Amino acid sequence: MSKKPLILVTNDDGITAPGIRTLIRVMNTIGDVVVVAPDNPQSGMGHAITINNTLRCRQEHIDDGPQIEFSTSGTPADCVKLAVREIMDRTPDLCVSGINHGSNSSINVIYSGTMSAAVEAGIEGIPAIGFSLLDYKWDAKFEALEDYIKTITLNVLNKGLPNDIVLNVNCPKVSSKAEIKGIKICRQARGNWVEEFDKRQTPSGEDYYWLTGKFVNFDHGEDTDEWALANNYISVVPVQFDLTAHHCIQQLNSWKLND
Amino acid sequence: MSKKPLILVTNDDGITAPGIRTLIRVMNTIGDVVVVAPDNPQSGMGHAITINNTLRCRQEHIDDGPQIEFSTSGTPADCVKLAVREIMDRTPDLCVSGINHGSNSSINVIYSGTMSAAVEAGIEGIPAIGFSLLDYKWDAKFEALEDYIKTITLNVLNKGLPNDIVLNVNCPKVSSKAEIKGIKICRQARGNWVEEFDKRQTPSGEDYYWLTGKFVNFDHGEDTDEWALANNYISVVPVQFDLTAHHCIQQLNSWKLND
Repeated sequence: MSKKPLILVTNDDGITAPGIRTLIRVMNTIGDVVVVAPDNPQSGMGHAITINNTLRCRQEHIDDGPQIEFSTSGTPADCVKLAVREIMDRTPDLCVSGINHGSNSSINVIYSGTMSAAVEAGIEGIPAIGFSLLDYKWDAKFEALEDYIKTITLNVLNKGLPNDIVLNVNCPKVSSKAEIKGIKICRQARGNWVEEFDKRQTPSGEDYYWLTGKFVNFDHGEDTDEWALANNYISVVPVQFDLTAHHCIQQLNSWKLND
Repeated sequence: MSKKPLILVTNDDGITAPGIRTLIRVMNTIGDVVVVAPDNPQSGMGHAITINNTLRCRQEHIDDGPQIEFSTSGTPADCVKLAVREIMDRTPDLCVSGINHGSNSSINVIYSGTMSAAVEAGIEGIPAIGFSLLDYKWDAKFEALEDYIKTITLNVLNKGLPNDIVLNVNCPKVSSKAEIKGIKICRQARGNWVEEFDKRQTPSGEDYYWLTGKFVNFDHGEDTDEWALANNYISVVPVQFDLTAHHCIQQLNSWKLND
């Protein structure tokens, strides 16, 4: 039996994306790696799961390396469920998701397939980290981040995460490692997307829309992920999946809804 | 200009589902209603949004009534974005989502399209409530809940919700209103799904899976939504979309990741 940690790697850009290939390479230096990732891009899937359709899963060989790989027809959350219940012999010691091509900072965490995979692992009690780079391009440069990813991952493996918490790690777009100022523990900035729908017509005259928009940061705090990223820090936000706003319970009780 | 509140109604079971038809009927007694809902079931879609595909939207006439209705090809979150940016003349005073056919209590809030619509409205600054009934059947009995839905909705309209909070309302399955003991403000119970994958073969011999499973409640607190529902109360959980685990920031800072 290997004493190396067993690491599940997944993402939402699909199993062939350069981001996950980089993450697999880094994880191969740390542990035994099993990859279970979507067979096509699943960006914006949030925490979707496949309950009204079937799931396919097949073994893949994409890069040389010691990792074992499977692609599935499902969402990132499905991949984690399949990996844990069907594919892996034992519960992994860690789940890492990404490296996402594009930001999952601020409110983007809500829409993120990358983070939903990490959250799904967290729900299963598996320490989990989502990694994202603020560059949507397919040929984004991930190399500058490799040492930072390794540092964060080893810390999580060695120190463990608090219960019911996963990490949302976002990396600024830089051309070399020297530009990164360091790692900052942050809170999620208050911001949202201001959507614009690009309305068009089909050749037969029916309206349809493309969803586009611009992210607006309403939060000027210097303890936020947006601030950290704008100042070339890697942001690390501890993310919880107990969504209860505990501080509001007393206020709602004062409504006396049963009177 | 009408002085009645403007209410956006959506869901994830699709615009023809009995649950949303009930919700529309109740909302028609409170305000001016615009319905923007998926043209087919979107259960389990979590906070998915449509970014790699086009969106269709068309006006519908399903039931008689004063409401204006549109169906879309998108997810519940898409419906809210389309409603707010494209369809409605002004920002609605309230968004209600549901009534979902099935529970969105405990960890189900994470997978819920119903709640993602409410959260999307909340992100836009619109007071929002997701309603669910613990009965998956298409012909579930929604009538017993109508007065409770009206009470909760009127309270939200009159008192407003705390900033960045939406309500997750779940209703026990009962055969008459008399069985409901009242409304309880709750926290999200700690529980999760233990999945089982039903593995089958296609006629040509390829493996495929159906995702099934059982919800397990690990939380014996009497202040949880699961406890309330098991005891025939309607549960109301205030839900936040700042996912930061603020209480963990200090602990993560002690890791000294930059040393």
